[in-house]
Amino acid sequence: MKKLIVILFTLMTTFQAHAQACTDSLMVRIAEIEVYPEHLHAYLEAAAEVGSTSVHEEPGVVCIFPMQMRDDSTQIRIIEIYRSPEAYESHLHTAHFLRYKTGTLHMVKSLRLPAMQPLDPKAMPAIFAKMAADA
Amino acid sequence: MKKLIVILFTLMTTFQAHAQACTDSLMVRIAEIEVYPEHLHAYLEAAAEVGSTSVHEEPGVVCIFPMQMRDDSTQIRIIEIYRSPEAYESHLHTAHFLRYKTGTLHMVKSLRLPAMQPLDPKAMPAIFAKMAADA
Repeated sequence: MKKLIVILFTLMTTFQAHAQACTDSLMVRIAEIEVYPEHLHAYLEAAAEVGSTSVHEEPGVVCIFPMQMRDDSTQIRIIEIYRSPEAYESHLHTAHFLRYKTGTLHMVKSLRLPAMQPLDPKAMPAIFAKMAADA
Repeated sequence: MKKLIVILFTLMTTFQAHAQACTDSLMVRIAEIEVYPEHLHAYLEAAAEVGSTSVHEEPGVVCIFPMQMRDDSTQIRIIEIYRSPEAYESHLHTAHFLRYKTGTLHMVKSLRLPAMQPLDPKAMPAIFAKMAADA
């Protein structure tokens, strides 16, 4: 019984340490983008496509979530979560990101990319669990 | 064999319709908050607590994800996802939200709450799947 408790405790500690290491190195950004109205349709298509491709094809891209402001449809916000600074660097060099970047340069009126610090990185899997399950 | 295909097709259509209904009614907001520096510590504690309580206790609160801007720690951004407008209304009347709201009123210098439209609501479970799994 004692042995079982020790094994369970070791497993739990290892799991927690792994989860902590994973969330500690996360990189989070909010892209704040204003798009020229005449290019909005084309921009939205390109943004949705690069987001989807990145999440599917790059293990280091945890989440790319693009949204449009309801009161001003030219205002785009994209939540971007990368597994590490290296994963972010690697993303910037992929063919799909470069195609999006060069293809939409003339559509973008302004771009800010503030780096963000989640208040509780360890809680992130729980924070997004319902959304992933069935929302 | 034909029967099996019909059953499978019906199940798939029902499942897709359910997923679509779930994501169609979602309400997404980004809270853009500036906090007085002298109240920052207390504000961050209150924000982390109300977020965590809401996600755990309210089935209609899908996700509350608070972040702090790295270059200006008084700038807070919170991604809020509710299952429906009714779930959002109900959240505004919970004891934990009212305690947070009245307890932090004097800490908040400015607040904007733009309503957002996800570019691809149906893709949201997939967009957040990795984050929920192990990030």
